[in-house]
Amino acid sequence: MAQDLVIGIDVGGQTTKCGVIDARGTVLAQTVIRTDTYTEIEPYIAELAAALQHIISEAGAEGHIRGIGVGAPNGNYYTGEIENAVNLTWGGTKRIAFSKLLSDAMNGIPVSLTNDANAAAMGEMTYGAARGMKNFIMITLGTGVGSGIVIDGKIVYGHDGFAGELGHTCAVRYNGRLCNCGKTGCLETYCSATGVARTAREWIEMTSEPSVLRSLDKVTSKDVYEAAKEGDKLALKIFEYTGTILGQKFADFIEFSAPEAIVLFGGLARAKEFLSGPIEKSMNANVLPLWRGKVKLVFSQLKESDAAILGASALAWEL
Amino acid sequence: MAQDLVIGIDVGGQTTKCGVIDARGTVLAQTVIRTDTYTEIEPYIAELAAALQHIISEAGAEGHIRGIGVGAPNGNYYTGEIENAVNLTWGGTKRIAFSKLLSDAMNGIPVSLTNDANAAAMGEMTYGAARGMKNFIMITLGTGVGSGIVIDGKIVYGHDGFAGELGHTCAVRYNGRLCNCGKTGCLETYCSATGVARTAREWIEMTSEPSVLRSLDKVTSKDVYEAAKEGDKLALKIFEYTGTILGQKFADFIEFSAPEAIVLFGGLARAKEFLSGPIEKSMNANVLPLWRGKVKLVFSQLKESDAAILGASALAWEL
Repeated sequence: MAQDLVIGIDVGGQTTKCGVIDARGTVLAQTVIRTDTYTEIEPYIAELAAALQHIISEAGAEGHIRGIGVGAPNGNYYTGEIENAVNLTWGGTKRIAFSKLLSDAMNGIPVSLTNDANAAAMGEMTYGAARGMKNFIMITLGTGVGSGIVIDGKIVYGHDGFAGELGHTCAVRYNGRLCNCGKTGCLETYCSATGVARTAREWIEMTSEPSVLRSLDKVTSKDVYEAAKEGDKLALKIFEYTGTILGQKFADFIEFSAPEAIVLFGGLARAKEFLSGPIEKSMNANVLPLWRGKVKLVFSQLKESDAAILGASALAWEL
Repeated sequence: MAQDLVIGIDVGGQTTKCGVIDARGTVLAQTVIRTDTYTEIEPYIAELAAALQHIISEAGAEGHIRGIGVGAPNGNYYTGEIENAVNLTWGGTKRIAFSKLLSDAMNGIPVSLTNDANAAAMGEMTYGAARGMKNFIMITLGTGVGSGIVIDGKIVYGHDGFAGELGHTCAVRYNGRLCNCGKTGCLETYCSATGVARTAREWIEMTSEPSVLRSLDKVTSKDVYEAAKEGDKLALKIFEYTGTILGQKFADFIEFSAPEAIVLFGGLARAKEFLSGPIEKSMNANVLPLWRGKVKLVFSQLKESDAAILGASALAWEL
């Protein structure tokens, strides 16, 4: 047996998921460790390496791991570092030489790193809804709005490795919502799961529209989704508003890179039935005539955890 | 002598400029014909081919032309066609097989075609301010706002060949100005030469600020520039407004592709002294902290006509 297996790792704020994967994308063994029980990187890497050794041995893969691919918030493909990842307990404002630390702990197996949205785009291109596409934009609608941009079959990293921060492009110019990044009006303050919940709370406050959401203590995007399924008018309007803003920004993105499709992924993308109509309508109203009705809007079919692990693993095949 | 020369052609609405160019970017012979005296493509191609034969013979280049590169409005790199070029008298709403027609008229010399802004970006990358850069965005501030996006050393064409229409991304969401494309609020309705003149006329109407511009019959962007040089306050405010909008949009573009630089080119870019301050301030205020103060704002040093011919010629080397 040659070195025909890879490892994919998805580093999240709470947990880190990893798997041993073969060339067909089959997950031979997988496990999960906590990310947030560590405030220093060294003990986290030690536990991660131990977990990897465990699944390698479980898969009978000793000596056959060609490389390790990692998707992590603020992961830089060029440097292999995680920079300023404030959402990771061991991240903070430091630059962490993640790839080197992990490779050292794994007896020199090469490690390739990118951010989580780029890894998800790799997963979608290799195994998912974007299979065979060379030009698409992946938008992850989760706690924030992430993006992975593919042009000519390659992830766009840009000059410094950080390209694809579409969640922080400006959706609302005046009186925009304050974002975690310090700016106002960022797309993710409106169109992430958090943004949808924020819209709900604002509208409950500012309107008198009757809604089942009024009876809840703290409204989440999932509550809005459940209410919309019951036909709640306020909830339906919230999705229409969210989809309209997404469509406006997607039009700008299309004018940048002329993708074949925009692929939606993440928790909020499950509200496909309420989002796709408003997005398509707004996207086509705001884009140049030459692209009207031509750019596909596609919803991911991969499970979230799988997409991230598989995407990260696709990175390792390139090592 | 091997086939070591190329031809670069810049198709404009009024004139078509062409030159024979060597590997060092020296223009060995050049000429200009009218574009706008033809309503049909065939006689235009016949005159263009005759003009090319003339400069080829002038340069002593018979049998040594490796290829022809063309920059033209709405030129499609993938298909070699000019599509819906309403600004060309022979363009209209048709699809014109420009590359094929020209190649046939030139005894089969291969022809490569792209739009004018992409050709300018190629020129800037090969001979100009972006030499050695692999990731930059070229913005042409002329009658409209054009763009050529370079990622990893290559022009971005996208799925259909039309990527890079940044002049039609949305600058003003509500009550935006009507654009030639049919949309409202497009960047080019504010930040092109035409947009600057439009701002001047609006502000003369809507404010009582004293200005030398009030005495003019029909204000142009050149008038605004001349007035600004004389310290005219209204003219200076117009450039501040224009630069602020450009900076806001540049921030979005940086968040898309993380370029090393944004390169400005075209008639309006000559107002560098009044535009660069407001652009830099607004760009850095609107971009994610990680890029603040890091992305260069560069003004082209090439003459406009040269950049277009040289850029188009660079396309021919790739044939």
